[in-house]
Amino acid sequence: MPHIHLPEGLQGIRSAMAFRPETAKPLNDLAEVLLHAPNSLPQGDRELIATYVSYLNDCYFCQTVHGAIAAACLDDDYNLVKRVKADFQAAEISNKLKSLLVIAAKVQKGGKNVTSEDIQAARAQGATDTEIHDTVLIAAAFSMYNRYVDGLDTWQPHDEALYRERGKKTAQDGYVSMSKEYLRQS
Amino acid sequence: MPHIHLPEGLQGIRSAMAFRPETAKPLNDLAEVLLHAPNSLPQGDRELIATYVSYLNDCYFCQTVHGAIAAACLDDDYNLVKRVKADFQAAEISNKLKSLLVIAAKVQKGGKNVTSEDIQAARAQGATDTEIHDTVLIAAAFSMYNRYVDGLDTWQPHDEALYRERGKKTAQDGYVSMSKEYLRQS
Repeated sequence: MPHIHLPEGLQGIRSAMAFRPETAKPLNDLAEVLLHAPNSLPQGDRELIATYVSYLNDCYFCQTVHGAIAAACLDDDYNLVKRVKADFQAAEISNKLKSLLVIAAKVQKGGKNVTSEDIQAARAQGATDTEIHDTVLIAAAFSMYNRYVDGLDTWQPHDEALYRERGKKTAQDGYVSMSKEYLRQS
Repeated sequence: MPHIHLPEGLQGIRSAMAFRPETAKPLNDLAEVLLHAPNSLPQGDRELIATYVSYLNDCYFCQTVHGAIAAACLDDDYNLVKRVKADFQAAEISNKLKSLLVIAAKVQKGGKNVTSEDIQAARAQGATDTEIHDTVLIAAAFSMYNRYVDGLDTWQPHDEALYRERGKKTAQDGYVSMSKEYLRQS
C-alpha cells in the first residue's frame, strides 16, 4: 500500500502525478524534452538508457514502462531490452550507445564516477557534447523518477501486458499529452 | 575542467542550464514548485532538506548554494546549516523537520529504504501527506540535480562568499526569475 493516500487505480508515477499536478507538469515536461522531442540520439536509444538506469535502481514500474516504450520504438519483441539489461556490452546495439550506457551507469552510482576516459570513449564513437549531456541528464533524471516512484511505495502491478499497450501509446504521443489523460481522471 | 564544452564563467548547474535551455526550463520549474512556491512546509525547511541530500551526495555546488538559500530564509549565520549537515538530530530544528530529514536520507540511498514506520513517525509530528510527498520528491530531485552537476564535472569554485549573495537573491526571487539572468547571458 502506498505510504500516502494516492488516487487509486493509477500505476506507479501516474498516481503520484495525479496527487500533485503542480510537480507533475515539470516532471512530464522534462521527460518530454529528454526522451520524446527530436534529438540526434534515436528515441529508442534514449528509452534504453532510461530503462537500464531504472533496472540498476531496481524500479519495477520505470524499467517496465520504459522498456515497453523502447521496445515499441525499436520494433523489438523485448529480447533486445532484456539483453541490454542483462549485459549491454554483449547486446546488438551500437558501440556509441554502449559507450553512453557506460556513462549512464556511472551517473546512476553518483556523478563523480564519470571519468574523462569515459567521455573520450563516447567521443571516439561519435557522441556529441549534447548527446553526452543528455545521457548524463537522463541517467540523473531516472535517479529521481525511480526514487519518487519507490519512495512513495506506489502501486506497481507485476503484469507486463498492462505496460505494453501503454508503451506503444507513449512512444507515439509522448509524455505531455499522455499526462493529460490521468491528470484529468484524478 | 568540465567533461563537455559548457559556457565559461557560470558556476555549477548554471553552466549546464545555459548549455541546454530546453532542459533548464523544466528543471527550474520543478525547483520553483518544490522549494520556492507557497507551501505549508517553510521555505527554509525545504532548502535544508535540499542542502542535506546534496551534502549526503557530496555535491559541493548544490550543498553550498542551497545552504546559502536556507541560511537566508532562516536568518541564520550558517551555524544551523552546518549543524544540520553534521548531525541533524542534535540541531535546533523542529521534530517534524527531523522526521522528514530521516525520510529524505532514506530516499537519497534509494526509494525502497523508506519504511511505514518512517512515515508514521513523520505523521506523529504533524506532517501531512503533501509534506511527505514533497519531502520524497525534493530528496529524489536532488539525487538528480547533484548527479547532473557532478556528472558533467561543472566548474564549482570553492569560495563560499560567492554563493552567499546569490543565496539571498534566490531565496527572495526564486528559481524561474533567477534562471532568466544566466540563460540570457549564454
